[in-house]
Amino acid sequence: MAKIPVLQNILEANEAIAGQVRQRLERAGIIAYNFIGAPGAGKTSLLEQTLPRLRDRLPAAVIEADCATARDAERIKAFGVEVVQINTGSGCHVPAHLVLLALDSLPLERIRLLAIENVGNLICPAELDIGESGKIAVISVTEGDDKPQKYPMLFRQCCAVVLNKVDLIPHTDFRRERFENDLRAVNAGVPLFGISCRTGEGVDAWVEWLIGQTARE
Amino acid sequence: MAKIPVLQNILEANEAIAGQVRQRLERAGIIAYNFIGAPGAGKTSLLEQTLPRLRDRLPAAVIEADCATARDAERIKAFGVEVVQINTGSGCHVPAHLVLLALDSLPLERIRLLAIENVGNLICPAELDIGESGKIAVISVTEGDDKPQKYPMLFRQCCAVVLNKVDLIPHTDFRRERFENDLRAVNAGVPLFGISCRTGEGVDAWVEWLIGQTARE
Repeated sequence: MAKIPVLQNILEANEAIAGQVRQRLERAGIIAYNFIGAPGAGKTSLLEQTLPRLRDRLPAAVIEADCATARDAERIKAFGVEVVQINTGSGCHVPAHLVLLALDSLPLERIRLLAIENVGNLICPAELDIGESGKIAVISVTEGDDKPQKYPMLFRQCCAVVLNKVDLIPHTDFRRERFENDLRAVNAGVPLFGISCRTGEGVDAWVEWLIGQTARE
Repeated sequence: MAKIPVLQNILEANEAIAGQVRQRLERAGIIAYNFIGAPGAGKTSLLEQTLPRLRDRLPAAVIEADCATARDAERIKAFGVEVVQINTGSGCHVPAHLVLLALDSLPLERIRLLAIENVGNLICPAELDIGESGKIAVISVTEGDDKPQKYPMLFRQCCAVVLNKVDLIPHTDFRRERFENDLRAVNAGVPLFGISCRTGEGVDAWVEWLIGQTARE
């Protein structure tokens, strides 16, 4: 008699499904980044700046996750990039099984990069595996320079940090040195990209890093 | 034989304990507000602006909740206000039982207002009862004008909305009319206070509303 599989808890089930997502992406030769940050940190704006710069260099698709609305997916669609919107309702993160489902709607054979924009939340998505190759922390100057140690989970786990809205530094009390010290205390070596999605400052360096990562795979 | 109480699930247990918190606060004649918003929206800054204006008018105490550090409690302590810091670790909201525990460390007989600053998170704390009299949504201009419909749970539940960082409007793409329309679509009548914790603009109107609420109780 075949053994009946028992999923002991939701986290364990999520891990098993994350494994399936990872396997499917690896087979297709796709690198997948899970973009995590607070609401309004600029995750969608970062993709809006990034996607046109990838054109002809790195074919990409996007999964957008929000509690409600398809606004972010509409913004991405405007760039002619394949996108799937996930609505989580009151769910505070995107679980692996919704990513697995979303893969069915994407042309995996034609892409090399999958950007998954998680629900706006600095906490819950940080420790959940959804089959991604790495987590990208997106934080903005206006959130304050004291966040890495107050919300260490994401900053500890991520493979890169994008600090957005650097154009607003002169209008705020943000001290970049304090932010960097705070970040280094939880993750000494993580690459940090200071950018402005509004002015485009610093975006090229971030995009080159991203392209370099996929070349390494 | 006495019936054995069985707590069927975590949410049910939380609700039972929230009831105990509420009862204890009501007996002491305390109104309690649960301040909810994304990391960096300015919840602590709002309290820093509010507490000095309440002095001699409304004795207050504060419960601070963060994943890690006692930084926010230290900021509040500087105002000579009683404060308890809760660290939730990887927990994305403050549960009722930690509020109940915190009450033991506060001089309930001497206060009329309890401000509970929740963990920086626009989603998870929105639907959890912790025994508060009402939820205050704190959002900042730099998070964008499209948030109420993307994260409707909090905006639907709250009894007031504080829109912080209005001093940054000229430096951003934030359209106040769009924000208000977005908010009204999920909560038509909720009071909205546009303020700047940096310049003090609008804070007085918010504080008068707060004092008016406690007078009504």
